[in-house]
Amino acid sequence: MLQRRLFHSSKATLYKTLTPLTHVKHAGLKRNSNFAKITDKDIDYFKSVLSPNNIIYEPDPESLEIKQHNVDWFNLYRGSSSLCLFPTTTEQVSKVLRYCNQHSLAVVPQGGNTGVSGGAVPIFDEIILNSSKMNKIRHFDEISGVAVVDCGVILENLSQFLEPKGYTVPLDLGAKGSCQIGGNVSTNAGGLRLIKYGNLHGAEGTLGYVTGVSLLTPRLPKAVNVAMIALNSFETVQKAFVMAKEDLSEILSAFEFWDHESVDVVKSQMMDQSNYPIEGKHAFYALIETQGSNREHDQEKLDSYITRLFQADVAKDGVLAQDSKQAETFWSWREEIPGSIAKSGTAMTYDFGLDAPLLYKMVEDTKDHFDKKGLLGKDKLYSNLIGFGHLGDGNLHLMANLNEFDNGGQSLMDDFVFDWAIKHNGSISAEHGIGISKVHYMKKAKTDAQLRIMKTLKDALDPKGIMNPYKIIPEQS
Amino acid sequence: MLQRRLFHSSKATLYKTLTPLTHVKHAGLKRNSNFAKITDKDIDYFKSVLSPNNIIYEPDPESLEIKQHNVDWFNLYRGSSSLCLFPTTTEQVSKVLRYCNQHSLAVVPQGGNTGVSGGAVPIFDEIILNSSKMNKIRHFDEISGVAVVDCGVILENLSQFLEPKGYTVPLDLGAKGSCQIGGNVSTNAGGLRLIKYGNLHGAEGTLGYVTGVSLLTPRLPKAVNVAMIALNSFETVQKAFVMAKEDLSEILSAFEFWDHESVDVVKSQMMDQSNYPIEGKHAFYALIETQGSNREHDQEKLDSYITRLFQADVAKDGVLAQDSKQAETFWSWREEIPGSIAKSGTAMTYDFGLDAPLLYKMVEDTKDHFDKKGLLGKDKLYSNLIGFGHLGDGNLHLMANLNEFDNGGQSLMDDFVFDWAIKHNGSISAEHGIGISKVHYMKKAKTDAQLRIMKTLKDALDPKGIMNPYKIIPEQS
Repeated sequence: MLQRRLFHSSKATLYKTLTPLTHVKHAGLKRNSNFAKITDKDIDYFKSVLSPNNIIYEPDPESLEIKQHNVDWFNLYRGSSSLCLFPTTTEQVSKVLRYCNQHSLAVVPQGGNTGVSGGAVPIFDEIILNSSKMNKIRHFDEISGVAVVDCGVILENLSQFLEPKGYTVPLDLGAKGSCQIGGNVSTNAGGLRLIKYGNLHGAEGTLGYVTGVSLLTPRLPKAVNVAMIALNSFETVQKAFVMAKEDLSEILSAFEFWDHESVDVVKSQMMDQSNYPIEGKHAFYALIETQGSNREHDQEKLDSYITRLFQADVAKDGVLAQDSKQAETFWSWREEIPGSIAKSGTAMTYDFGLDAPLLYKMVEDTKDHFDKKGLLGKDKLYSNLIGFGHLGDGNLHLMANLNEFDNGGQSLMDDFVFDWAIKHNGSISAEHGIGISKVHYMKKAKTDAQLRIMKTLKDALDPKGIMNPYKIIPEQS
Repeated sequence: MLQRRLFHSSKATLYKTLTPLTHVKHAGLKRNSNFAKITDKDIDYFKSVLSPNNIIYEPDPESLEIKQHNVDWFNLYRGSSSLCLFPTTTEQVSKVLRYCNQHSLAVVPQGGNTGVSGGAVPIFDEIILNSSKMNKIRHFDEISGVAVVDCGVILENLSQFLEPKGYTVPLDLGAKGSCQIGGNVSTNAGGLRLIKYGNLHGAEGTLGYVTGVSLLTPRLPKAVNVAMIALNSFETVQKAFVMAKEDLSEILSAFEFWDHESVDVVKSQMMDQSNYPIEGKHAFYALIETQGSNREHDQEKLDSYITRLFQADVAKDGVLAQDSKQAETFWSWREEIPGSIAKSGTAMTYDFGLDAPLLYKMVEDTKDHFDKKGLLGKDKLYSNLIGFGHLGDGNLHLMANLNEFDNGGQSLMDDFVFDWAIKHNGSISAEHGIGISKVHYMKKAKTDAQLRIMKTLKDALDPKGIMNPYKIIPEQS
């Protein structure tokens, strides 16, 4: 079992100040001895392909320059690679991969290194193939809105390029200032507005290297409105969602929910308590955002939606943001949740795809289970067990503080929640990817036939298994 | 070169009355001798898996019962299979395919058999695995709108199931009364509202058999509005489209265009000329549809869009449908185009994906090219060369009548337009699939590396090549 401490960040920069774990044991994993070790001859070859300032070669993986590429954003996974390459063109990527394949050198593709599943860092001495210097916007068609871009374009840079042209990126993530579009594709990024724009699909670097991406970008919305409502059961949260689809339909761009325990955690860490937009204590809260082309129309729709919620006794309280600053404040109460629980202690994070009615049942069943065992509560093994997520796409984030940081506590929770998800036809990952962190659960989550097909495709496209080894596909036992 | 006569149908039932070609030569294709021929032992096995009324076994492929499965919807491609199987469960599909793989029996997956590229009929004696009897709606979640259905569910039946629940299928095709969702997925169906809902992706039955489909269905729109406008250049058509995205944004559900030659063809075949909604002769027409949740808002948006079009001198004339009957009439002028040209003579159809500004340039260049050669016009080799399509997704349908039905005329046009598309970074198929009809052009359209990857995936998943052989991937030359 891997030792790990994971949390999902919607404001990833926040955690740079946290104390890093000094090391992470990759318990049970052994370096694949089929892979060659880097020689001076290899370095000479890479120098013939890339210019010297696009190569970091540091035989000591602890040296500062290489270390940042060996360690993931959260200091949870740490490899010991001595080589990081920064290709600038597809041709260079192709030459590097051809050489690595011929010489059995393992490779880990890396973008902005903001992933939460340890997929973008080496496990042992894999060569890091970093896309940061492939950052050109190749082509934009103002008629269709199609943008063709290099893999290493940072999400926010693409956004800044598109906005003056009246277009926007159909993807919004907390890590947008650092994450790269090639990594977004590779890790199946979803984000806050999946409900309106859909998500991306990739193979986490195990089948190849994404060198460029073609995106159909939507128009920049002329109006954005945000409301926050209070509800007293998860059943009414679901009702409010169905009514939002009825009344807001094409302008509904986000429907986020969280429980009151989430608010308590944020209040304990982040904000002046008096600022929370809704008074009193309610079991659930939801944030509803609209994006549309006519402010007046959108406000009228949102007003009549909110009115109907109260008339039907679905919502108990609610507030409408009066300006973009207020809207930002409402959002921050949702976005600060993962960061706040991480600040409260060692935090475990989960990311499930489930049928909407089951989303909070999972949280309740998990609470019940560990409560009955006497393991949940202040000064117990687990505390602050909270649930929040994207109702629109059936995506639950379950998080808890682990008060004794040892393998037992993590794996006890893992076993319960992963089993629960699998038993209820859910997915063990919705938008965080499998990476290294969930690879050991794939045997439970997938049938033998599914794993066999994954392995068959992997073997066909990457017969020597050099692309992001140890990730996603479990080793044969 | 294959002899073929293709047309795209948005009202597929129309063509059932056309005289069928008596045979189609599969020139240059030979039956793969690695495939076994069906024996009585095989039939005994299939009888042990499927009930007798789910097997058609007719050693004479011309016998009526089996013939309808050997011939495609347009009577263009004709196989000579003696066996058509109708599994009712995924398990049966699995047993049949396992047996066929073990015994090297080639298989062609078939749904509603409404494809336009000959992908769903046997080329020689492949066993037809028809999905018509796998037609259950397995599960529908009214909260999320997720529908899980068998592959053989007919698109219109799914629509009728969803509508009373306030949901709709995010795909609309002319063949919806016959086509099946498994086939839609397999052939990358796009349709009339791709711009709003996106399209599907599949492998045309060459990598496996789609047994079920999970669909996120959107709310049934409360209001649908349709306008038709006249424009005098393709540049202004594009301007009108950009303005539609600005003004109609989230409610824009279709933006179709066609040239005046298309109208002439429809008028000559289908309708009372006095009925065309816009008087006078204009170079281009566009149909704009909105789907939304508030009729008043949508009409206001559409009105101000149309006003702006006239103010900016983009549109020359225009009409708004006053009711759903008028809206249907407007649509019919667009939908009758392919059928009308098919009625005018032997019709060739093409389906290209191109950058928006190039869509009509292709039509103009093709016209110029064959005009200069003296081959275009009444009583010439080609007549009625028209262009129409889905501007929103960069999808051009180019069609023409071929007045001497021989191989030379077809391939002369093929070579010019496919080369043109490839030279301009376009795709030789947007939504019609490759099937058998374009397999010979894949070597031009794809690089060796792309074809090698396709072949590698095919070999990995289907090592004996039994799944829909002869289609999509060209034989090694």
